[in-house]
Amino acid sequence: MEDVLIEVLEAIKPSEEERNFLMSLMDELKGVVNETASELGVEVRPYFVGSIAKDTYLAGDHDVDLFLAFPLDVPPERLREDGLKLARAVAEKLGNYEVAYAEHPYVRAVYRGISVDLVPCYDVKSWRDVRTAVDRSILHTEWVNRHVNGRNDEIRVLKRFLKGIGVYGSEVYIRGFSGYLAEILVITFGSFTDVLRRADEMIKYRVIDPENWLKKEPSLASSTVKRELDSDRPLIVIDPVDPRRNVSANLSWEKYGIFYLKSAEFIRHPSMEFFFPGKKKRGDYRTELRRRGTHILTLIFEVPGIVDDLLLPQVEKTAKSLEKALGREGFRVLGRNFGRNFIMLEIDRVEREAISIKEGPEFFSERAPDFYSKNKKVWIMGKRLYSEKAVNSSIVDVVDELLRKNRVSIGRSIREEVRASKILIDYVPRDLEGEAWSFLTRKKWSVKD
Amino acid sequence: MEDVLIEVLEAIKPSEEERNFLMSLMDELKGVVNETASELGVEVRPYFVGSIAKDTYLAGDHDVDLFLAFPLDVPPERLREDGLKLARAVAEKLGNYEVAYAEHPYVRAVYRGISVDLVPCYDVKSWRDVRTAVDRSILHTEWVNRHVNGRNDEIRVLKRFLKGIGVYGSEVYIRGFSGYLAEILVITFGSFTDVLRRADEMIKYRVIDPENWLKKEPSLASSTVKRELDSDRPLIVIDPVDPRRNVSANLSWEKYGIFYLKSAEFIRHPSMEFFFPGKKKRGDYRTELRRRGTHILTLIFEVPGIVDDLLLPQVEKTAKSLEKALGREGFRVLGRNFGRNFIMLEIDRVEREAISIKEGPEFFSERAPDFYSKNKKVWIMGKRLYSEKAVNSSIVDVVDELLRKNRVSIGRSIREEVRASKILIDYVPRDLEGEAWSFLTRKKWSVKD
Repeated sequence: MEDVLIEVLEAIKPSEEERNFLMSLMDELKGVVNETASELGVEVRPYFVGSIAKDTYLAGDHDVDLFLAFPLDVPPERLREDGLKLARAVAEKLGNYEVAYAEHPYVRAVYRGISVDLVPCYDVKSWRDVRTAVDRSILHTEWVNRHVNGRNDEIRVLKRFLKGIGVYGSEVYIRGFSGYLAEILVITFGSFTDVLRRADEMIKYRVIDPENWLKKEPSLASSTVKRELDSDRPLIVIDPVDPRRNVSANLSWEKYGIFYLKSAEFIRHPSMEFFFPGKKKRGDYRTELRRRGTHILTLIFEVPGIVDDLLLPQVEKTAKSLEKALGREGFRVLGRNFGRNFIMLEIDRVEREAISIKEGPEFFSERAPDFYSKNKKVWIMGKRLYSEKAVNSSIVDVVDELLRKNRVSIGRSIREEVRASKILIDYVPRDLEGEAWSFLTRKKWSVKD
Repeated sequence: MEDVLIEVLEAIKPSEEERNFLMSLMDELKGVVNETASELGVEVRPYFVGSIAKDTYLAGDHDVDLFLAFPLDVPPERLREDGLKLARAVAEKLGNYEVAYAEHPYVRAVYRGISVDLVPCYDVKSWRDVRTAVDRSILHTEWVNRHVNGRNDEIRVLKRFLKGIGVYGSEVYIRGFSGYLAEILVITFGSFTDVLRRADEMIKYRVIDPENWLKKEPSLASSTVKRELDSDRPLIVIDPVDPRRNVSANLSWEKYGIFYLKSAEFIRHPSMEFFFPGKKKRGDYRTELRRRGTHILTLIFEVPGIVDDLLLPQVEKTAKSLEKALGREGFRVLGRNFGRNFIMLEIDRVEREAISIKEGPEFFSERAPDFYSKNKKVWIMGKRLYSEKAVNSSIVDVVDELLRKNRVSIGRSIREEVRASKILIDYVPRDLEGEAWSFLTRKKWSVKD
């Protein structure tokens, strides 16, 4: 185990040279911000946040987050306007840049080969001041730096482990562990291996509260716990800097499950493979389809201009609803997959019976005469009347009808796009071939193969 | 209505000539029995039973049942022996004959072109004396003759109606109305049309008790009612001559349902069609298969030497169990049919997926490590582990395996035969083509098409 950890650290710990380079870069950037702010007459404090500021970044992985913090008495519109103006002015001096949009606009520049995000925010001192999602980052950075207590390398090892097993990143299309969550876990439990050893305990207790918010702010913190339990989150980590927030709100059961199983496996059989898995050879989805004797139905649609955080849950909801609707139509769905612009279902067949048998009422019941007169063909089995009707037998026709007749509940922002989907059977476009293969083989969610 | 009934009666009422012929035939037969009995020194009384004896037979439909009734003090073995000896001796004088076997052996002879059954039995005076199934027939004949009160033609019309709509006969492969049941219904309700008008009332009250057994023998009669309700019979007609028996024990819900709907229809729109339906043109089952987009799976087996009353319920049970087992294997069964030597299932497809997905335990549960180590390939969806295994995809292989591994519960007397079945897909032998067509189209149980 020790040997493995030493070898990992050698690979991921930034060199002295790298550290010095970043230090000087940060000094320069700070200078440019202060200079530009006074040129524009804007009152602002620059903060570095993120893994560089916390010294928990992996070697070679150093995007810089530079936050431009405005006093709390600046109105939001002014912050938006002045913030963007200042960020642009700074970026002009650095070189190439573009404006990006989250809750508020920010600027992404590149300076000396490093990506630098210039993000306007409020200069908050406590969770009570937090107004926008980014405001909390300064508090996070401060909290980690105050508590890390020299365990920065343990955090680096944990981050690399999470990356290696494929569960790092809290983005909505990953739903894994955020960097901040990794930092909190090491700070709370002591070391990389301590975190791994707690995988079972954590899922059994469900709640982690490093700053004792449940004592200090019992009503706020317990309502956070209740809310998150109701949403069936695998883990509730009350944010050390904000009792209203679950740091692991985006973590999915699947990603926690992979972490859970891989942790146990690593403790039994430590190896570099967990941190640096070899690139797996990708197979052909058509071969897999033949092996499985199943079929793949793919809907491809245009992506509307909304952020992934809004888009993906709507695609997921649509995929689930389509799966249910197809089940009611007699197609068995063996698996479900989706992405920004597609839904894929693995199905048992592409043609169903051309008739559907309708179960009617008991022949002596009040509803029987109605059923009897409304149907052209009626027969009896046991006590019941039955009839049949002709139905579309091809799944393409069935999906088409389901969409047209609003029998699939489609997320609001993608309704028109999904209804105009291309419907593909046992074939996917080139750029989805890998996706189709990792879906059909279940490599996408694999913990053992 | 009246015109229709007159026309029906013209067709089915025996002519004066036919009646005279049967009278003289019965006289002759009686003479032969008495003469032969005294020759053999056997004490016996001849009784005519059945529709001829009750004068409720249809023109041209006159099989004669001649019962040879022995005193109650004759032991069963002697009755069996002497009964068969006497019946044979009588039959010798009549001409051709053969010995047939039910609970006891009897003799089937042909005399003057008429089939004559010579059936040994006990000369019972009351239900308390009844020892074998046939003994009751003498009591039935007496009861009907005592109560028919000139309504013989009403009974004939009802019998013809039941034949016409396909629900006449209490044999196990028909499960319709027996002649005796038709007689009781007319005697109880007054006339043919009265019986039809009571179709709804009967199924709502369920119990008909013409001889008031529930008052005269409350404990016996109510235990009959309870027993038959527990077996979910559509109708309980307590036998006027035996409180322990439900005359309509063999009547199925399907056959009662047809009677129920056709009665209502006939009352609204009387026509000769109900009594004498035109021969329907039979279609091709292959055309119907194509139209439906379904498949037909047929098991054909050897018939063991047991009577239908024992055989058919076992075949039915086997068919039901096979249907369930196939359902568990992912094949949808749309319909089920069976006969003495075959089981037919209508199915949605003949090939299923070549893999089956196994749902495992939650990844953090006690059973998880076992599932994880036992399966080569494991993945996570939500909180659960999953795996897959290769399975037979052809339905022929699946059925074969189900039978071989005892996963279908097969009736005891046909176990070996069914396990050695021929398994046919989308094809039936010539003699089952009609059966396959009437099954697939549901004409077999049709009340409207």
